[in-house]
Amino acid sequence: MNPVSTETLIDQLNWRYATKKFDATKKIPADQWAALEEATVLSPSSFGLQPWKFIVVTDPALRATLKVKSWNQPQVTDASHLLVFARRASMSRVEIDAYIDRIVEVRKVPRETLNGYRDMMAAFIEKPAPAFDVKVWTSCQVYIALGVFLSAAAMLGIDTCPMEGIDPAAYDEVLGLKAKGFATTVVAAAGYRASDDPIAAMAKVRMNMEDAIERR
Amino acid sequence: MNPVSTETLIDQLNWRYATKKFDATKKIPADQWAALEEATVLSPSSFGLQPWKFIVVTDPALRATLKVKSWNQPQVTDASHLLVFARRASMSRVEIDAYIDRIVEVRKVPRETLNGYRDMMAAFIEKPAPAFDVKVWTSCQVYIALGVFLSAAAMLGIDTCPMEGIDPAAYDEVLGLKAKGFATTVVAAAGYRASDDPIAAMAKVRMNMEDAIERR
Repeated sequence: MNPVSTETLIDQLNWRYATKKFDATKKIPADQWAALEEATVLSPSSFGLQPWKFIVVTDPALRATLKVKSWNQPQVTDASHLLVFARRASMSRVEIDAYIDRIVEVRKVPRETLNGYRDMMAAFIEKPAPAFDVKVWTSCQVYIALGVFLSAAAMLGIDTCPMEGIDPAAYDEVLGLKAKGFATTVVAAAGYRASDDPIAAMAKVRMNMEDAIERR
Repeated sequence: MNPVSTETLIDQLNWRYATKKFDATKKIPADQWAALEEATVLSPSSFGLQPWKFIVVTDPALRATLKVKSWNQPQVTDASHLLVFARRASMSRVEIDAYIDRIVEVRKVPRETLNGYRDMMAAFIEKPAPAFDVKVWTSCQVYIALGVFLSAAAMLGIDTCPMEGIDPAAYDEVLGLKAKGFATTVVAAAGYRASDDPIAAMAKVRMNMEDAIERR
């Protein structure tokens, strides 16, 4: 355990903003990017099921193609790294059994001790909509990972820009995700803010605490 | 800027787990909880619209009532704090104009300079479903805040348990959220793990990096 102070936490989260103009000459060092990948993979998810895939796009030609599918936002090509957050397009007992396999492998527990857990997860994903809506549920899980990624980058002093303004179906096609059973959900660019990004100097706009927080 | 090392980041995120058994005698110090509230309010959201409210529940009687609406999970009553993440139940020009008011107040900019931004947001939320589905969109934003909250707590060395296993409609009723225009989305308990929580010692189960991450 190696916790940080409240000052460090709040300093870094206040420093974060949705960077609109990246310095295209600055790259994230390999060890820092590796930590961000690891942080993202460590994200919590419902039941631990991790219904996601994270696609790291560094190829300039591919980034140029994706920029066109992102309302031509310059972050797509100018940031050091582009991370595509994809959700599982469907959930079935196949994915649950693969997860059970992985628990057995990591924790060295007898498979039969997990039967109850497996049945509980299967009952959950087999509920008819709206009790279980696969798109809503997997999207929400992916957004936890987005929150973890953006927070982790802020803690390391790396700038990010989360982007919903993309064409998810076009991303799926460009990245060949549909055939793999995934669907593009949201994207984040990461790197370093340009010294002349005017937004960096603007005050952060948040609701008053008394509007955002209710105490009971 | 006061960034942390990659070791600190990964140590703390590895230390985090979904705590099933809290030490009911340990309370989060006021300054640490205040930092977690601030971290949550600092969460990014689409357009910065913050379509959420965070309800901090500390009253024991209310916590006992909510426990019954949470499959009797003991975290609801035993953790130091319970945080209910609620999404806006609907989005209209009223919420957008309130946000514009807040930008004018914080940034001291003339309102008319924000007309384009206001029109863009209005066009977005007024698209018919499925292009804009208010429940999906607001839920996703709330899950970013959940990811930020869980990460921030981990950085401070505070345990958490995210919980989807609740009855959101019952929470809405108990907390009177519907009349205020909000809907319970997800809950997190926060505090300190009990020294005998058997799950704390178990290995974290994550997909292999090569399954979770694709490089392009």
